[in-house]
Amino acid sequence: MRLNDLYELSVPPVSRDICASSKHIWDSVAHPLDGLGALEEDICRIAAAQGRVLPDITKKALLIFCADNGVVSEGVSQCGSDVTFKVAELMGQRKSSVGIMTQGYPVDIITVDTGIDSDESIDGVIEHKIRRGSGNIMKEAAMSEEECLKAIECGTEMVHELAKQGYGIIATGEMGIGNTTTSTAVLCALSGLGPEQVTGRGAGLSDEGLAKKIAVIKKALSFHQLDCTPGVISKEYAFKVLRSLGGFDIAALTGTFIGGAMYKVPVVADGLISAVAALCAEYIAPGCSSYMLASHNGKERGCEAVLAKLKLHPVIDADLALGEGSGAVLLLPMLDMAMNLYKAGTAFGNTGIESYKRFDQ
Amino acid sequence: MRLNDLYELSVPPVSRDICASSKHIWDSVAHPLDGLGALEEDICRIAAAQGRVLPDITKKALLIFCADNGVVSEGVSQCGSDVTFKVAELMGQRKSSVGIMTQGYPVDIITVDTGIDSDESIDGVIEHKIRRGSGNIMKEAAMSEEECLKAIECGTEMVHELAKQGYGIIATGEMGIGNTTTSTAVLCALSGLGPEQVTGRGAGLSDEGLAKKIAVIKKALSFHQLDCTPGVISKEYAFKVLRSLGGFDIAALTGTFIGGAMYKVPVVADGLISAVAALCAEYIAPGCSSYMLASHNGKERGCEAVLAKLKLHPVIDADLALGEGSGAVLLLPMLDMAMNLYKAGTAFGNTGIESYKRFDQ
Repeated sequence: MRLNDLYELSVPPVSRDICASSKHIWDSVAHPLDGLGALEEDICRIAAAQGRVLPDITKKALLIFCADNGVVSEGVSQCGSDVTFKVAELMGQRKSSVGIMTQGYPVDIITVDTGIDSDESIDGVIEHKIRRGSGNIMKEAAMSEEECLKAIECGTEMVHELAKQGYGIIATGEMGIGNTTTSTAVLCALSGLGPEQVTGRGAGLSDEGLAKKIAVIKKALSFHQLDCTPGVISKEYAFKVLRSLGGFDIAALTGTFIGGAMYKVPVVADGLISAVAALCAEYIAPGCSSYMLASHNGKERGCEAVLAKLKLHPVIDADLALGEGSGAVLLLPMLDMAMNLYKAGTAFGNTGIESYKRFDQ
Repeated sequence: MRLNDLYELSVPPVSRDICASSKHIWDSVAHPLDGLGALEEDICRIAAAQGRVLPDITKKALLIFCADNGVVSEGVSQCGSDVTFKVAELMGQRKSSVGIMTQGYPVDIITVDTGIDSDESIDGVIEHKIRRGSGNIMKEAAMSEEECLKAIECGTEMVHELAKQGYGIIATGEMGIGNTTTSTAVLCALSGLGPEQVTGRGAGLSDEGLAKKIAVIKKALSFHQLDCTPGVISKEYAFKVLRSLGGFDIAALTGTFIGGAMYKVPVVADGLISAVAALCAEYIAPGCSSYMLASHNGKERGCEAVLAKLKLHPVIDADLALGEGSGAVLLLPMLDMAMNLYKAGTAFGNTGIESYKRFDQ
């Protein structure tokens, strides 16, 4: 993919008719109108994204991108970069946190190395390494233009492949020590919010550590002259922000959200990092957000702000901060239950119960 | 059970040691500290409620109480009382909304008739009818003292039975046309909140319908002289409120929450009606709330206020308004996933990953 190809991508709008038909089906199910609230909206979005009134989410994937971040050398994390490799090893064996959480639940976990700082290949992890870790955003661009495009393309291609294999929904996850720093920097540059407002403690930082992280993000924004956010975010600006301040995980996730729209597979955002990638995707390929679902509002301070910008409603409010797509997979069984009712809900006509009436409120 | 027996119930406090040990286990799991946020707290609560550091929630029940409410004759609902019977019939066949939602998910649905307005017995529904519908709260007490005690005892006895059968967690649900009116009246009398502030549209009401519902609740509060909420809610006052303004569903749910504390089984609140019953339980048998979990914050306006009074944190925020315990069961697969990690999470010691440090924040 060349840069122009990326900018020229046009996202097909989702069908309003399908969305309306889907809501109509909900209204004919024998239950109080809008009874499943935001979950009904989620199913309508899934239907519209897949382009069919009766969507299929039987086959589910969790797509996790792992990459290291040069900025870790500035001391923004409690952990060293070696943890990325170690957790990716566990992921390959389905023994990392999210692998253990989903034991017995039918979601396939697909782990992709887009930039782990190691030359070893990892069993069970798809190798798509672009470079051994991104550049230190405080002093250099995270990625070259070409590298960033490659990472985005890795995301779109993974979705293409999963779509061909019949996956109906993709949850997103990431693993990369330092990536709450990079994603918060991206968020600041895209939103104009100050690092003091949105920087969180990641996987656990002391007050001192938090202050350092904020200082690093400020310096990164200033180094790249991205501390003066324009009123309207162009595709070019969004791409520049992503490649300067992001990482190989965030860029591949950006590609995943774009891929969801290209191949008509709904993609579930997880926490801050994944949501920031979703925001990049929406700016680079406007309209993508119709193909997205939120899962939770995250513990990281910026997460809610990002989801609000994307007009996505997270149904889980649990101060989650685990990463790996763990929040996104928590949404899946709820969608299953809602889908069961949507598909097989006994229509009012068959139960002898009169349909509820909808009033304008 | 006599009234004095109820007042003399003493709830055993949950073990702080178990709660602390449980949190310690979480901290030793290879994941960012507090990574699963409120779900970690939920598992600690479950452990403390069951009285063991490694609790067992394999066997799960959804306990649904069905009853009619005399106040429906005042026109507070879009539906007639016959819908309670019809939905209970579907519940008995696991064909109501929550039965369909949970197809393929291992939760046993136990439906109990404590006051459906019919003499017919219903296949698959446990008969424990106290009377064919509660009194019209605008003009008379919902229940006599004896009836209310019977309904509470039905709840405690059901929990006793389920505990003996090895159930480790009980989700609560209800079906009873008119029961957002009765539960909102109970909430007003227990909280001092005005009917205008907390009355919602139930399963769907027009503006006119809502105004009528508010007027009915006001009249009921005034008729029973319960419109002047005391500063401190005594057991006696709480019982009077429940029997005057509640119903056979709410009273049985109150017993269920009390039973959870008596038999050490954590009980999950659903929406407004179930949460109001939980509040009654806490006032009648102080300490019960340690054995409770919240699931969602509901669409009905009073629900959040009740959960806040009980200091329960709902992790689902989805404007749910279906009833039948549908919100409570949505929490269960999330607890399963959290429990998987709690039980089997690879300890830091085994992964070569250094443990995260906890800082005072």
